[in-house]
Amino acid sequence: MAAVRRLDAIDDVIHQKVRLGVMSSLMASGECDFNFLKAALGVSDGNLSTHLTVLEESGYVRVTKEFHGKKPRTTYLPTDSGRRAFEAYVTALEEMVRR
Amino acid sequence: MAAVRRLDAIDDVIHQKVRLGVMSSLMASGECDFNFLKAALGVSDGNLSTHLTVLEESGYVRVTKEFHGKKPRTTYLPTDSGRRAFEAYVTALEEMVRR
Repeated sequence: MAAVRRLDAIDDVIHQKVRLGVMSSLMASGECDFNFLKAALGVSDGNLSTHLTVLEESGYVRVTKEFHGKKPRTTYLPTDSGRRAFEAYVTALEEMVRR
Repeated sequence: MAAVRRLDAIDDVIHQKVRLGVMSSLMASGECDFNFLKAALGVSDGNLSTHLTVLEESGYVRVTKEFHGKKPRTTYLPTDSGRRAFEAYVTALEEMVRR
């Protein structure tokens, strides 16, 4: 008898590919700015913005805006809740695909 | 400098949650029948059928129909291509979320 596969254990907020890329980058780097994420993931401004908003509204990502001289810089960090959700997601996924 | 995250390395056919559950079950068990998959994944007939069709049309799953006495039984197996795609998917995902 094979195991039940708990689909609902996989967080839809994180499972979407762009958001998964963002969360993976933030978890690895601690913080990333918008242009870095855009280049690292190879996505458009609009697409990235949309998914960052979902992550922010889910409480997984915190945004800070600061000026470097006259240049604005927008930086994204994972929240504690985002870190926990990411860890739980990876665990659920490992559980799902285990061979 | 953090790494580039290759979103396109993640196979969309497998990434969808129901299909991921199906492929994980088939990889673990070698073959599964429709009713087993439905119970293991907790999805409706229609939902499961739709995703099995996508997997079949992608060449990742093979369907066999046989009779047990008078009862028809539909069984699903991963193809060689499906097995390779699943392994590549898991590798790409591990690469993505590595900490």
